[in-house]
Amino acid sequence: MNLRIPGPTPLPREVAEAGGREMINHRGPEFADLIARTTEGVRRVYGTENEVLTLSASGTGGMEAAVANHVSPGERVLVVTIGVFGNRFAEIVTAYGGIPQLLEHEHGTAADANEVDRILASDPSIRTVLITHNETSTGATNVALPRIAEAVRHHDRLLLVDAISSLSSIPVDVDGWGLDVVVSGSQKGWMMGPGLAFISVSERAWERQERCTAPRFYFDLRRARRSLEAGQTPWTPAIPLLFQLDRALELMFEEGIEAIYERHRRLARMTRDGVRSLGLELLAAEGVESDTVTAMRVPEGIAASDILRVAREEHGTVFAGGQGPLGGKIVRFGHLGYVSEEDVSSGLDALAGTLRALGFAGAGAAV
Amino acid sequence: MNLRIPGPTPLPREVAEAGGREMINHRGPEFADLIARTTEGVRRVYGTENEVLTLSASGTGGMEAAVANHVSPGERVLVVTIGVFGNRFAEIVTAYGGIPQLLEHEHGTAADANEVDRILASDPSIRTVLITHNETSTGATNVALPRIAEAVRHHDRLLLVDAISSLSSIPVDVDGWGLDVVVSGSQKGWMMGPGLAFISVSERAWERQERCTAPRFYFDLRRARRSLEAGQTPWTPAIPLLFQLDRALELMFEEGIEAIYERHRRLARMTRDGVRSLGLELLAAEGVESDTVTAMRVPEGIAASDILRVAREEHGTVFAGGQGPLGGKIVRFGHLGYVSEEDVSSGLDALAGTLRALGFAGAGAAV
Repeated sequence: MNLRIPGPTPLPREVAEAGGREMINHRGPEFADLIARTTEGVRRVYGTENEVLTLSASGTGGMEAAVANHVSPGERVLVVTIGVFGNRFAEIVTAYGGIPQLLEHEHGTAADANEVDRILASDPSIRTVLITHNETSTGATNVALPRIAEAVRHHDRLLLVDAISSLSSIPVDVDGWGLDVVVSGSQKGWMMGPGLAFISVSERAWERQERCTAPRFYFDLRRARRSLEAGQTPWTPAIPLLFQLDRALELMFEEGIEAIYERHRRLARMTRDGVRSLGLELLAAEGVESDTVTAMRVPEGIAASDILRVAREEHGTVFAGGQGPLGGKIVRFGHLGYVSEEDVSSGLDALAGTLRALGFAGAGAAV
Repeated sequence: MNLRIPGPTPLPREVAEAGGREMINHRGPEFADLIARTTEGVRRVYGTENEVLTLSASGTGGMEAAVANHVSPGERVLVVTIGVFGNRFAEIVTAYGGIPQLLEHEHGTAADANEVDRILASDPSIRTVLITHNETSTGATNVALPRIAEAVRHHDRLLLVDAISSLSSIPVDVDGWGLDVVVSGSQKGWMMGPGLAFISVSERAWERQERCTAPRFYFDLRRARRSLEAGQTPWTPAIPLLFQLDRALELMFEEGIEAIYERHRRLARMTRDGVRSLGLELLAAEGVESDTVTAMRVPEGIAASDILRVAREEHGTVFAGGQGPLGGKIVRFGHLGYVSEEDVSSGLDALAGTLRALGFAGAGAAV
C-alpha cells in the first residue's frame, strides 16, 4: 500500500528494522549514549542552541507539553489558527484552564503578521501566542511566521509553535526567528514511526515554566531536562522508536538537511502541478501552499469517500480525507519524509486513474 | 547483554521484528483491525468485561491518566504506598491539585486491608483510593489487594490500581476483585518494548469521569473511548509498538495465560531460592515476595554499584539498583515477561560470580 497521507509516512526499510534491535536498559550506559546521540541529532535538525527534549508521546502530547508548561490557568493567550490543528492548540489551552483568543483564518489561507502585532499592541494581558507553522489539515503554511515571531518578541510575549508537520521538511529557523517553544512529531518528516514528540525550549520559556501553575507530570519539561543531564528520561521511554530515530537521523544527515528541504520543495511543486493539470483546484491560496501536504478540493459531483476508496482499492494508494469542517470537501496528498519523485509520480497516476474511473471529465488532461 | 531488570524486558525475536512492519494509515481499515484485535487481546489478558484503552505513553502516563480522569483538584485521596511507585502515584495526585493522604509502609512490606478499611470508615471525605499492586522498587506484592478492594467497595469509594509490573505476569482478577481502574505497561510482562500503557475502566469510573474537573487532553479517556468505537485512537498512536503488541499477544495466548502465571511463579521461586542460597537476604517480607522482581539487600562491605558493574562487565548481565531511598541498599533481579529457566539460571550464575569476584564469603554456597 502506497501511503500518500501527511503522516504516518512510509519508513526506509533499515529505519523500520532498527525498531527491532535488542532491548536495552533505560538506566544504563547504552541508553545514555543513545539519548545523547539522538538528542544532538534532533537538535541539529532543529538548528538551535536551545535545549531539545524527546517525549514518548505523539505530536499532540508535544502540543500539550507546550501548553501545560507555559500557560497558567486563567491566563489569556492568542491562538493563531488556520485549521484543525490550530484549533486543537486552543482546545488544549481550554482543557488546561487557559483562555484562548482565536485569530481565525479561512481554510487554505495563512496568518498575517500585522494582525498579530495589532492584537498584541492593544492587549497587554496576552502573554503568550500559539501558532501552527504548517497546517496539515489544509495544506497551508504560515509563511509569515518569521515576521509574526518578530512581532511577538517586539511585544515581549512568548511564542509556542506547532511545527509538527514542517520541521525536518520545511526550513524552521528556530533561533534566527526567535521561536521559544517548537514542537515536532516523529511520524512526519523524520522518516520513522509515530510515537515520539520533540520540543525545543528557549531560555525565556524555561523562566516562564518556573512561574507556570498548570498541572503537569508526565509532560513536565523540567523533569525531562534534569533526567537528560543524567543521560536518561524521567519515565521509561519508547526505546524501539528511539532506535528508529537513531537510524533515521543518520540517513537524514547523509542526505543533508538542505538537500532534504530542496527535495520537499521540488516534490511539492511536482504534486501541485500534477494536481492542477488534472483539473483540480488547490485549497491553499497562492504563496502559502505547504511543501509537505497538498489539499485539493473535491470536484462537484464526486464524493471524497469514493476517491479515497477507489484510490485505495484499485490503485493501492492511500490519500487522506478532510478533517472536521473540511470532511468530504478535500482530499489530501502527503509528500513528506521518505518520499521520492517516483512516489509522487505514482501517487499522481493513482489520483488520475481514480478520477477517470469516477467519470471526472477534467481528468483527461492527466498523465 | 542479558537484561535481568524489571523492565524493559528482553523481547522474543519475532516480537521485536514485528516493530519493523510497513507503516499503515492510522485512520484506515488496517489500523481499525489492528486496534480492535489488540484491544480484545489486552482485554483478554486483563480478564475483564470493562473497557480497556491503549495509550501511547509509558506506564507513568497510564498512572497520570488514572489520576487526571478521576481525581478532581482539591479532592482528598488515600494513597496506599509500599515504595517508589506508590509515592509516584501520590506525586501525580499532588501535581494535579489533589490532596493525597499517604498510608506508608516499610520497604519490603505490603499493605493491610484492615488499615484501609479503618481509614475509609473514619474519613468520608476520601472518595478515591490509589494503590500499587506490585511494587517494582521493593519486590513486594500487595497480596491483600482483593481484600483491600473489598473494603473500598464496601465504603463505596473508587479504586485506582497501578498493576504495571504485575498484570500479564501475576494474576489480577479485575472484575472478581472489583478494581475500577487498572493500569499496566508494555515493557513489563507483555514481552514487547516500552511505550504503551493499558488502562481498564469500570462503569463507576466512567461515571466519575463525567464529574472530574482535573484538566486532561492527551490522556482524556473519554476521547480515547469515543475514538476506539470508530476503530481509531484520538491521536496518532505508536504504530510500531502496536505491531509488537499484536505479535506478543499471539505468543501469550499460544503459551496460555495460566501457564504464564505458573512460569512466573516457578521462576520467582527459583530466583528467591538461588539468591538465598548465595547467602543474600531478600528485601521483601515472607509471603509478599513479588513473582516478577526480586530485591536483595546488598551485603555489608560491598558496594551495590560494584555488583552492577561487575555483573555487567564480567558477566554480560544487567541488574537494577535501588531507587530513591533504596539507592545503594538493594540490587533487583527481574524475572518477568519473556524469561525462561535458563535466563534465571544464568542470571543467578552471574550474580554468584560477581559476588565471588567482590570477595563476598557467602557466595561460596552458590551454583
